[in-house]
Amino acid sequence: MEIIEVSPRDGLQNEAVLLPTKTKVELIGRAVDAGARRIEAVSFVRPDAVPAMADAEAVMARVRRRPDVSYIGLVLNRRGFDRARESAVDEINVVVPVSETFSRRNQNAGAESLMTMAEEVAERAAGIGLPCSITLAVAFGCPFEGEVDPERVVEFSMRAARAGAREVALADTIGVAVPAQVRSTLTALRAEFAGRPGPLLRTHFHNTRNTGYANAIAAVDLGVTRLDASIGGVGGCPFAPQATGNIATEDLVYLLERSGFETGLDLDRLIETARFLGEALGRLVPALLPRAGGFPAPAAGV
Amino acid sequence: MEIIEVSPRDGLQNEAVLLPTKTKVELIGRAVDAGARRIEAVSFVRPDAVPAMADAEAVMARVRRRPDVSYIGLVLNRRGFDRARESAVDEINVVVPVSETFSRRNQNAGAESLMTMAEEVAERAAGIGLPCSITLAVAFGCPFEGEVDPERVVEFSMRAARAGAREVALADTIGVAVPAQVRSTLTALRAEFAGRPGPLLRTHFHNTRNTGYANAIAAVDLGVTRLDASIGGVGGCPFAPQATGNIATEDLVYLLERSGFETGLDLDRLIETARFLGEALGRLVPALLPRAGGFPAPAAGV
Repeated sequence: MEIIEVSPRDGLQNEAVLLPTKTKVELIGRAVDAGARRIEAVSFVRPDAVPAMADAEAVMARVRRRPDVSYIGLVLNRRGFDRARESAVDEINVVVPVSETFSRRNQNAGAESLMTMAEEVAERAAGIGLPCSITLAVAFGCPFEGEVDPERVVEFSMRAARAGAREVALADTIGVAVPAQVRSTLTALRAEFAGRPGPLLRTHFHNTRNTGYANAIAAVDLGVTRLDASIGGVGGCPFAPQATGNIATEDLVYLLERSGFETGLDLDRLIETARFLGEALGRLVPALLPRAGGFPAPAAGV
Repeated sequence: MEIIEVSPRDGLQNEAVLLPTKTKVELIGRAVDAGARRIEAVSFVRPDAVPAMADAEAVMARVRRRPDVSYIGLVLNRRGFDRARESAVDEINVVVPVSETFSRRNQNAGAESLMTMAEEVAERAAGIGLPCSITLAVAFGCPFEGEVDPERVVEFSMRAARAGAREVALADTIGVAVPAQVRSTLTALRAEFAGRPGPLLRTHFHNTRNTGYANAIAAVDLGVTRLDASIGGVGGCPFAPQATGNIATEDLVYLLERSGFETGLDLDRLIETARFLGEALGRLVPALLPRAGGFPAPAAGV
């Protein structure tokens, strides 16, 4: 199982507190020390649109790079791609919403034109050997349009693969998916790519309505081995101000390891890092392992 | 799907705030108004051991009984059974831990002697036509002994069925189970009862480590149609003071209904009741639907 650590990006992006560059660099370092080998470290977006990500270049400049760790930069447009190259990230992740209204409200352009941009970026990335993922946002529901047509998810995934994206991530951006929907969408995708080279599938679940971990298990049951998660479960959702964020890395690790999968991550160090992050943000993080502890506990019998 | 509402019992039992009888009666009434038809309303335990349940008789005396609602009393021993009968509950639920240490620490007797008590109570209940469930506590892990032998769960389930219990509930009392374990335990039980009349299976999950909803879906996938849940997800765990409680009724309803199952429960009324309960307890309840709202939202497009 490969868990892509997204706390420095999706986690911090929606937090009320802006962390200093130094703290972000420390978070990334601690995630690596806990075993993370792919980290969505920064987002190359407009600083006025997302102030929490304004120091993307500074974060990448200060992170002590390790050759066995892939530092990922999020990209929403061509300008972001150029910035990502200048910062020498190890891979990029281009986000395209599958709903029209969400695209216009969140990225000021139609979904079709964003998908065309993503194809172009993916082709340019492929041309210079830079690994590129495409994340399909609101793939399981849109806060403005409601239900999303799974055919649209399949179509955009096909186009992403053809453009050279090595991975397609299905994102439940607002945390509305349920396992049955995850299964039907993944099954439709598998059917479409049957017999030809498709993209590697990755999932990005939020636990906004307490379905995130059930969705993760549904994806794993269908063969997905790449899952996004965020230390502490930080993140939240701009469309539900009180809501919790991404599924938490430590809670996912507990779930997967106790189910017999290896993650390469150290639960105790993740919990320590979640506490560090909670202190930095000045709030109780939504993850539950930091509160409840693992099982069987080292102190069983006490 | 039949959701057994346990907030008045398991929910309140572990809360720091003791609610007045009047508030408990109102909680039960609101749960019924939201569609609950089976409610674990009280626990007939020693008032000095569980002060939150000291007013069990008063609660049952004041609840406005409805003929289409089954009010359940929890029973831990023969004395509790007598009190349950005197209070004229519609059914009883006898709790037996499957781990030796938990039995001794929580109920001051060995697991074997508690199982013998449960068999006797189930037989007496069957004799007077009082429906009886047996809940097997710590069926997926014990805070003192660690892993639990699934064979013990199967053995106690067999004995419960033979004694006349119509239902066996598998309880993840401390919230450590994962879906793979739920599947293997349920599969072992099914194999044991193959070809002969077994008990109806019911599950009781806690979300202590964020695995509760994934476990519920795993059980549902294997045919379980009876699930315990608690409005607001209140409850907590005496062995993990900061931990969250039972899986929340409203979050489970969202998960099940959006998966195509009918629950007969009204999500908006459950959310209202969770808010009422949160105010009564003076804290933010762990359930997430009260924070995030349903989907697709009535106000979609705003």
